[in-house]
Amino acid sequence: MKTEVNADVGAALAAIEGRPLRHVFLVACGGSLSIMHPGKYLLDRFAPDLPCDLYNADEFVCRKPLRLDENSLVILCSQTGTTRETVAAARFAREHGAATIAMTLEIASPLAAAAEHAVAYRAHYTTGEKIDAADSNYAVLYMLLAGLLAQRNQADLVPALLASLSKLQPAIDKAKLAHEERFATFAERFQKSPAIYTLGAGPDYGAAYSYAICVLMEMQWINSQAVHANEFFHGPFEVVDKSACFIALLGLDETRRLEERARDFLLRFGDAKNILILDAAELDLEGLEDPFRALLVPLIFFDVLWVFAYRLAALRHQPMLEGRRYMKQISDY
Amino acid sequence: MKTEVNADVGAALAAIEGRPLRHVFLVACGGSLSIMHPGKYLLDRFAPDLPCDLYNADEFVCRKPLRLDENSLVILCSQTGTTRETVAAARFAREHGAATIAMTLEIASPLAAAAEHAVAYRAHYTTGEKIDAADSNYAVLYMLLAGLLAQRNQADLVPALLASLSKLQPAIDKAKLAHEERFATFAERFQKSPAIYTLGAGPDYGAAYSYAICVLMEMQWINSQAVHANEFFHGPFEVVDKSACFIALLGLDETRRLEERARDFLLRFGDAKNILILDAAELDLEGLEDPFRALLVPLIFFDVLWVFAYRLAALRHQPMLEGRRYMKQISDY
Repeated sequence: MKTEVNADVGAALAAIEGRPLRHVFLVACGGSLSIMHPGKYLLDRFAPDLPCDLYNADEFVCRKPLRLDENSLVILCSQTGTTRETVAAARFAREHGAATIAMTLEIASPLAAAAEHAVAYRAHYTTGEKIDAADSNYAVLYMLLAGLLAQRNQADLVPALLASLSKLQPAIDKAKLAHEERFATFAERFQKSPAIYTLGAGPDYGAAYSYAICVLMEMQWINSQAVHANEFFHGPFEVVDKSACFIALLGLDETRRLEERARDFLLRFGDAKNILILDAAELDLEGLEDPFRALLVPLIFFDVLWVFAYRLAALRHQPMLEGRRYMKQISDY
Repeated sequence: MKTEVNADVGAALAAIEGRPLRHVFLVACGGSLSIMHPGKYLLDRFAPDLPCDLYNADEFVCRKPLRLDENSLVILCSQTGTTRETVAAARFAREHGAATIAMTLEIASPLAAAAEHAVAYRAHYTTGEKIDAADSNYAVLYMLLAGLLAQRNQADLVPALLASLSKLQPAIDKAKLAHEERFATFAERFQKSPAIYTLGAGPDYGAAYSYAICVLMEMQWINSQAVHANEFFHGPFEVVDKSACFIALLGLDETRRLEERARDFLLRFGDAKNILILDAAELDLEGLEDPFRALLVPLIFFDVLWVFAYRLAALRHQPMLEGRRYMKQISDY
């Protein structure tokens, strides 16, 4: 089925059409913030006149960037639409006159109510139902950003995006299948490691970040860090020894050589048995078109790595979604 | 002694005076990148017309932001001036017509040669000699940025900066003394921990970042991560138990309440014996003026935490500067 622009996205973009914009702020927390990294990457590469910042929602409110005004667009995201800091950030942005668009699963949520415009997406993560990745947070964010660039005559990426999104779910399904065997092997090796690091650069950094903080730390209580693939060489690589466990992401974007260099170092000084490499060049990405072929890789990696997380969780006897002692267990912090 | 603007800074600023600028890029690797976080914080808060990005140097070159052009200022930093990625980034920026200013200890270095303008600073870290913090990387970076804002009539912060810098070293010395006893106690408790996390927000995030990657990981091979004080609540906090070791930074800037919230959580669900709190509100910062009172806190924290690192190193029998197996030990990676 051919993917079309999400109706909420179309409405939000139409509403801001005549509005002069000079800055885009991407604002969220945790996993929802992680998708903003590839969003910024897209704008950095294609928007000559829309500088872009991404901030944790509470940092954004306290920092109060001076450029936040009626010429700003603030895009916010929260799965449930209830993340307090993000709701507060939407209100804060509106008070400063900015255009606000909220992305959320719940169109009847506090975040959707707080922002001027709301865009719904879908996730199998919370609902358990099977969704098409063309309806995911990444898809909707790219529709917003590519639509914005088209509207402002800064780049014409919407056709390539829609064509790519219509082929995305099959690519993810094939990538999951392709990794199953390797994941079983690596879960055995990683299960007792005191730390598991994730490595990535460019848009992939977002996937590395959410996997480290929202999966390994949050759901499995494993020490972790998302290490930028070049920053790796300026400190973090000193923890590498034959027992160190790393997940190395290799994407298809312009920063791939940073990731290759980190992988090569890991294979040389670590033990290949403890280096789980996800290489997008080995995937069947039929139908994904530039630049989204590279920009959708982090979503593919993240979805694929969920399978690995469940493997780890089973061996470690720590269930995934129930494996939280604070988040959604207590509320007064 | 009254601090004056570094002569190199004055010359660099004079050279770009007539130049139209519409974007500032802060570019470096590792520890030198860490100081760019408070630099961006300063511009975010005070520059209405200078959007600012900070990038790892190799990410910057590969990402190739579309806004990089003859209307850009690129400020780069490398202690030795030999960091390959940063030297390449300086060349790359010049090829794109940008104004380039390199900060380095070594005015006769490849980085200084690659950039249009070079600014020397001093560090006790590499030379072992006692320096005045008014000559440090932070000091020089703030002179550049405050000078730029003054030159562009965007803010007049230079007098407050110079007044603050003249009082900075005594503040650091007092802060070190004030922490000595606590550091001895906490080094005992932290020495065998499988991981030590550092927490901070706003400008302090830079200090947390460099301490995690350049000190704990690089020199002590301890698993670590710099956790943003609000992102903490969106995943990382699930690793907290009574044995978890955290260093919590509490600054004086606008994001302090994020740091206070993280501290309160740690004291409630962790064990206070394993939560090392550095609170700038307890320090004697006589003579430091707004906004630099808050903006110099990360430098104070970082310098003070060196003392803690040496304490840890002694107990762990892993010498600090000799404690590297790859960096400066091998060169072909």
